[in-house]
Amino acid sequence: MSGNGFTHFDDSGNAVMVDVSAKETTSRSATAKGEISVGAEVMAAVRDRTAAKGDVLGVARIAGISAAKRTAELIPLCHLLNFDKCAVDFSLDTDDVESNIIEARCTVKLSGKTGAEMEALTGVSVALLTVYDMCKAIDKTMVIGNIRLCEKSGGRSGHFVGKPN
Amino acid sequence: MSGNGFTHFDDSGNAVMVDVSAKETTSRSATAKGEISVGAEVMAAVRDRTAAKGDVLGVARIAGISAAKRTAELIPLCHLLNFDKCAVDFSLDTDDVESNIIEARCTVKLSGKTGAEMEALTGVSVALLTVYDMCKAIDKTMVIGNIRLCEKSGGRSGHFVGKPN
Amino acid sequence: MSGNGFTHFDDSGNAVMVDVSAKETTSRSATAKGEISVGAEVMAAVRDRTAAKGDVLGVARIAGISAAKRTAELIPLCHLLNFDKCAVDFSLDTDDVESNIIEARCTVKLSGKTGAEMEALTGVSVALLTVYDMCKAIDKTMVIGNIRLCEKSGGRSGHFVGKPN
Amino acid sequence: MSGNGFTHFDDSGNAVMVDVSAKETTSRSATAKGEISVGAEVMAAVRDRTAAKGDVLGVARIAGISAAKRTAELIPLCHLLNFDKCAVDFSLDTDDVESNIIEARCTVKLSGKTGAEMEALTGVSVALLTVYDMCKAIDKTMVIGNIRLCEKSGGRSGHFVGKPN
Amino acid sequence: MSGNGFTHFDDSGNAVMVDVSAKETTSRSATAKGEISVGAEVMAAVRDRTAAKGDVLGVARIAGISAAKRTAELIPLCHLLNFDKCAVDFSLDTDDVESNIIEARCTVKLSGKTGAEMEALTGVSVALLTVYDMCKAIDKTMVIGNIRLCEKSGGRSGHFVGKPN
Amino acid sequence: MSGNGFTHFDDSGNAVMVDVSAKETTSRSATAKGEISVGAEVMAAVRDRTAAKGDVLGVARIAGISAAKRTAELIPLCHLLNFDKCAVDFSLDTDDVESNIIEARCTVKLSGKTGAEMEALTGVSVALLTVYDMCKAIDKTMVIGNIRLCEKSGGRSGHFVGKPN
Repeated sequence: MSGNGFTHFDDSGNAVMVDVSAKETTSRSATAKGEISVGAEVMAAVRDRTAAKGDVLGVARIAGISAAKRTAELIPLCHLLNFDKCAVDFSLDTDDVESNIIEARCTVKLSGKTGAEMEALTGVSVALLTVYDMCKAIDKTMVIGNIRLCEKSGGRSGHFVGKPN
Repeated sequence: MSGNGFTHFDDSGNAVMVDVSAKETTSRSATAKGEISVGAEVMAAVRDRTAAKGDVLGVARIAGISAAKRTAELIPLCHLLNFDKCAVDFSLDTDDVESNIIEARCTVKLSGKTGAEMEALTGVSVALLTVYDMCKAIDKTMVIGNIRLCEKSGGRSGHFVGKPN
Repeated sequence: MSGNGFTHFDDSGNAVMVDVSAKETTSRSATAKGEISVGAEVMAAVRDRTAAKGDVLGVARIAGISAAKRTAELIPLCHLLNFDKCAVDFSLDTDDVESNIIEARCTVKLSGKTGAEMEALTGVSVALLTVYDMCKAIDKTMVIGNIRLCEKSGGRSGHFVGKPN
Repeated sequence: MSGNGFTHFDDSGNAVMVDVSAKETTSRSATAKGEISVGAEVMAAVRDRTAAKGDVLGVARIAGISAAKRTAELIPLCHLLNFDKCAVDFSLDTDDVESNIIEARCTVKLSGKTGAEMEALTGVSVALLTVYDMCKAIDKTMVIGNIRLCEKSGGRSGHFVGKPN
Repeated sequence: MSGNGFTHFDDSGNAVMVDVSAKETTSRSATAKGEISVGAEVMAAVRDRTAAKGDVLGVARIAGISAAKRTAELIPLCHLLNFDKCAVDFSLDTDDVESNIIEARCTVKLSGKTGAEMEALTGVSVALLTVYDMCKAIDKTMVIGNIRLCEKSGGRSGHFVGKPN
Repeated sequence: MSGNGFTHFDDSGNAVMVDVSAKETTSRSATAKGEISVGAEVMAAVRDRTAAKGDVLGVARIAGISAAKRTAELIPLCHLLNFDKCAVDFSLDTDDVESNIIEARCTVKLSGKTGAEMEALTGVSVALLTVYDMCKAIDKTMVIGNIRLCEKSGGRSGHFVGKPN
């Protein structure tokens, strides 16, 4: 480590993949969440679609899971990790008619020497990008946000629970 | 198109890659932005790093460009597009000491039959995920957000400019 | 070409990617089909699923489209081609109660110097492998077969139509 | 599991990667087979080629092994698995002059929490697609089929042996 | 361009993919070469193998072609290019008994806005790495070298011919 | 093994991925080195850049690490391995004004059944190709060479140390 808290740089300031050879293999899991805010028209269309085959969220779920598995190809200093499980879910905030929020949640479980949070965050991000792609012909002003780690267990740093919402 | 505004479903409701065979090849460009909010410690460390080799933002820039090029592998119904240019930039909002915002911006230019917005949005998302990865040993409460299309030109739908900030 | 009909070998018998530099860019399309024969239990489950979100065939469709786009990574001497369109569809042969056949069909359209048949065949193959994967906990005796080119147009070799069924 | 035998859906019917965290790591192996039926001209050419460098089956073997390793990228809900071994072999049925069958066989061995059958089936499929690609200038009526699991050992479900041929 | 000859940095010193949007699409080709020096035992084994199926150089040829096609995934600021042709060849310097040199040559042809030299160099490099991999059980002191651009045509910078050998 | 020292061919001469199922999982590490010889103008520009953000060697470092992780996709018969660590470093030989050598060094650590040397060699190769890409607008006569294994430990074959320089 380079003295100022970063683990991804060596003493000369060069980027490195963190050495986890001395760490123990433990069961780990992480859950991340994120949102896309959409217009009323998109929200209605997505909601209608979820009952049909080939639905928006079904495609986005597969995209999110597939991307989570490939995190180490996308994030340069991430370790390749073999998953025990990966799930992507969505919930539609239908209470607040103004906001029209689609929330995505990704949980990754694995047995390894380093954590699963980047994988969960990547799964959420690509799932939301896929929702965007499928709805962009209707609305170009959608915004993706609030992507954060919600929970993480296993590993040396112990159990982490993010702030409520 | 399936009658309710979606272009990514056929009449039976099955997901399809949009048929662009009848569209003309035109010059297109798109710019997307997004942010990661970080703690004061991360902000100080990132700022210090940007003057050194192997810096956080330098790694994230390469990750963003590399991911933008591979958008069609990540987003299931995206067309593969050959870029003319791709750039990822960052700016640090140092005015607001509380917020500690790192903003990422990705611009993609290409000559093709369909737009560049998903590529720009993917570049921004993966760049921000990489910042997260490199800073997560310091701070696990970072939030990625405000990922949106800022500008898009070329193609049938004309020039789009997103809302200011 | 090496004298015995192969285009993928040079005069010394070495494998090469065919030189298409002298060929014209034309609109091309290809359709391939294939089948998976499944037990009655799988057929009933798949049929039930197709009305629900996250259905077997919806996942397989996305897998087939994604794989078709990556054909040039899988088939060593294939040219990378940018698609205009890709669609994967399924039909269930419910007449013949014994056979329990799920048929997959993949159509690829592109503008290029070489054909789209390998892409369509790859899309069908991976779609059927994905159906297999999702049903294998129920039945390990499924068989994938009858994968063939049904139609191909554009390019020097003219319009090809496969034998009926 | 969702009550009707599928392991790839949760209780709400959403596609998930099966949770194998509670399973033990065991030695596993799987063998799959498949065929491509070709015309007499292709068969003669392939047979001649197998004695020369750069032969059709040599290229297809490498394609099959390479694809088997990447199964988790192709089949959305497959777990990434690190192989202990992968082999692809071919045999030419020269007895039946009419059928002109090239048979491909792929065996995968690994140590993991879940089986190797999708990897073996993917290896066979891509090997056969590669044979198709290399011979399609001679014959466009080839058919790929009879892709099935022949044997599988290790793991909770015990030893599986497919029907003879 | 940033004033000191680099095209891959903007005025602020940030890495960018070069903007080729104003360049014309032209036919381009590039040839690169490289070598691996091996011990006498490896040389004898490789030479024997080249007459048999599954030979060392046949596998390395496929690896080189496959890698050349994926150059844009490996070299961060390379543009994705669709090849017209790619060939990898080898020659064995059998005159100089001491040196035991296996030379690899990769030629890439394409129609695009930017050159093919990185693709040819990548094809040579991965072909030689594959030879290394297949022979390393016999000899761990092999050295890969002399990887250079031999010829390049098309594009603004005109015809380039490297120094003899 | 096929009798003449190759481990990557079976008894029939067919290429196979070596069976490591009977080998023990051990800690392994490998270091490889390689060089690129550049002109005086490139050397001056690279040296100036290393103090700035977005530097040549910073980009090449990320490319090398990313490629090392993907070795099993590039080298057909390599096993997929999960890294414990990967680092790429550079040193500039500034003593010999004539040679203008940039040396790259890649170290890979992992826990597995087979070695890390191909991964280290791939990391070095792609790092040097990236340096080439970023400097080729200035100099087309650069040569990449002297890529070799320097040290390897762990595994049955014991500790290997390459010849000095």
